[in-house]
Amino acid sequence: MKRFLSAMLLLGLALGATGCGNLQNSNLSNNPTNTEKKAKKYQTTTTTKGGYTVLLKNGTYQVSPINGISATNNDNNIDTRSLEKGLLDLSKRQFSTNSYVFQEGQQISESTAENWLARATKKDKTGLNPIDNHKKGADTRNPIRVEQILEQDFLTGSGRNYHLGGMSLGIAMNSIDYYNKVTDGPQYHTTISRADQEKYGKIAAEKVVKRLRKRKKLRNIPILIGLFSKTGQDSLTGGTYFAYGIASANSSKIRDWKALNYKTQTLPTVGDQKAISSDDESDFSNFKSAIQDYFPDVSGVTANVRYEEGKLTEENISITTQFYGYAQIQSFTKLALSAARKYLPNNAAIEIKISSVNDVQAVIAKNSPSDNYYVHVFNGE
Amino acid sequence: MKRFLSAMLLLGLALGATGCGNLQNSNLSNNPTNTEKKAKKYQTTTTTKGGYTVLLKNGTYQVSPINGISATNNDNNIDTRSLEKGLLDLSKRQFSTNSYVFQEGQQISESTAENWLARATKKDKTGLNPIDNHKKGADTRNPIRVEQILEQDFLTGSGRNYHLGGMSLGIAMNSIDYYNKVTDGPQYHTTISRADQEKYGKIAAEKVVKRLRKRKKLRNIPILIGLFSKTGQDSLTGGTYFAYGIASANSSKIRDWKALNYKTQTLPTVGDQKAISSDDESDFSNFKSAIQDYFPDVSGVTANVRYEEGKLTEENISITTQFYGYAQIQSFTKLALSAARKYLPNNAAIEIKISSVNDVQAVIAKNSPSDNYYVHVFNGE
Repeated sequence: MKRFLSAMLLLGLALGATGCGNLQNSNLSNNPTNTEKKAKKYQTTTTTKGGYTVLLKNGTYQVSPINGISATNNDNNIDTRSLEKGLLDLSKRQFSTNSYVFQEGQQISESTAENWLARATKKDKTGLNPIDNHKKGADTRNPIRVEQILEQDFLTGSGRNYHLGGMSLGIAMNSIDYYNKVTDGPQYHTTISRADQEKYGKIAAEKVVKRLRKRKKLRNIPILIGLFSKTGQDSLTGGTYFAYGIASANSSKIRDWKALNYKTQTLPTVGDQKAISSDDESDFSNFKSAIQDYFPDVSGVTANVRYEEGKLTEENISITTQFYGYAQIQSFTKLALSAARKYLPNNAAIEIKISSVNDVQAVIAKNSPSDNYYVHVFNGE
Repeated sequence: MKRFLSAMLLLGLALGATGCGNLQNSNLSNNPTNTEKKAKKYQTTTTTKGGYTVLLKNGTYQVSPINGISATNNDNNIDTRSLEKGLLDLSKRQFSTNSYVFQEGQQISESTAENWLARATKKDKTGLNPIDNHKKGADTRNPIRVEQILEQDFLTGSGRNYHLGGMSLGIAMNSIDYYNKVTDGPQYHTTISRADQEKYGKIAAEKVVKRLRKRKKLRNIPILIGLFSKTGQDSLTGGTYFAYGIASANSSKIRDWKALNYKTQTLPTVGDQKAISSDDESDFSNFKSAIQDYFPDVSGVTANVRYEEGKLTEENISITTQFYGYAQIQSFTKLALSAARKYLPNNAAIEIKISSVNDVQAVIAKNSPSDNYYVHVFNGE
């Protein structure tokens, strides 16, 4: 078991806000009876289209006590954002952003998550991971399958009166489990197939829901479960959810599992890796050439592309330059905008982040495909 | 004399592009005869409202060979962007962005700048800085007054045919000159009054223009000169231009010096420093309180405010958080937007940069007072 530094920092927040009552929406209300009206104002801001309003408690944002708890020490940090953002996206299918407000998971405690992420033993079946069979072969040992659990809560109500109306759980399944044969010895790994991730992920999900249903408060709410495939240590893009299902109120049975076909990739591809879409690869390559021809001191241009059901939905481009003169950054940003308009696909959200050795220098983005590009060159020194 | 690392990097660029001819605008033209049309397209993009089109040479951006050359080693890096951006802004008063394209200064060579930034000697009056009188008292010695020279060129023409149509020079005058009485001994400093900066800045400006006019190519173009006051080593905001004048074509006389009343300040103020505007200070303080009340783990909120002729024109806010969970950053950004709308002035350009220990996480900005706020939460891992 371990915690990332990030989790420790997040906990710092939670500790300061353990009091009860006095619920408030995350708006700037000086008048708490006015919260609902203000909350609506948030939900209609163009910048947070389709986002949840967040419920605060005693005036502060509540973090989940199980953030950052993982079964092993071999976690790829890059998964963290994908795990969280992906579950929020899935949750919108079940918990409408108009009817529910969001809070990070408050129901599963730290010790519960630690117990669940442990291996089972002959005496204690609490652990969702398999009993240690003490074998050391990559394919003969029992790997750690369930690496992380993420909880998100969805509440309904108004004013000072909110109650839990739904919950989402992300269960992060290893695709590779790293292990040592002797303490501090060389690292080996067991590769876990998608079929295996799915089979054991569903078993873990059923167990978790059954356990939660024993608590009165959690009996009659819908629970959405997403199964997430974690990446290997070397991956440059975060993992993805590959299936989700729902346990209706008062039921421990997860009905209607749906497969999700999400893929992510970093461009340019390395080695003999094949691009998911050769069209998108060539668009990116044209974009890259255009900016590198005119500004030779651009040291790195990479894209993280994301596909849902075969369709490109997101392209996040990172450009590292070796210059930071004001006119040069301005000029380069104009060129990148022009290249983006000329070469990049029109049907995806695009983010282009331009950084120098010092700091981020400019951003070009459209948050949804139908938006116009927005450009901002940072002024702040 | 010294060069910053940045200047060295910039020079790397310049070295690769010393060939002549084949001028091109900084657009993505595959067809060089089409450059002018494309250049117009740039000038009408909303994102670069009022900005110059940049002229490339042999397909690459040209940096000025005198970038980063300074008279002493005691330069405050924070001035670099203000010096460059400020001169671009002044230049727009003389060289319309519709008629002229921009190029970083190409006329003053590295060795010329080094000679000009040196001290004069009894035999050689090339140096713009005063003869060393060998006194060591803060008020009895002759301080280094002219710290840096910045050149910007403005060209007219079309297609492959551009010629120099104007030039701007930024002369950076020390407000504090740091010195040692013995090599590697303790640091002392001479404070230089604004009156002194202005007097000697104007003398240096006249000398520089007279020297440039001796070159045939530079005889019949208008030259704009801006006098810039550099900050001390501890300043958190960049310096400002305090005067500018113009030498008309074929004239070495700088006519019509105009005083500029620009001020910058970092909020919250430190010690017993008084805010330039107590209204803006209290607006910022309300903004800061609002976001810190709801998210206690916000570790730093500062603003750099800029005033022109007593009017707030720019407020760049930097927020450092200790968290980077996706939902938390999203929620925090929404709150910051709401606080910005509620508390920050409506009549200035605003930039709010939200960073975590890892990297920039979000930006909220309006590039001009009449714009709406744009918000972007970074996706890229």
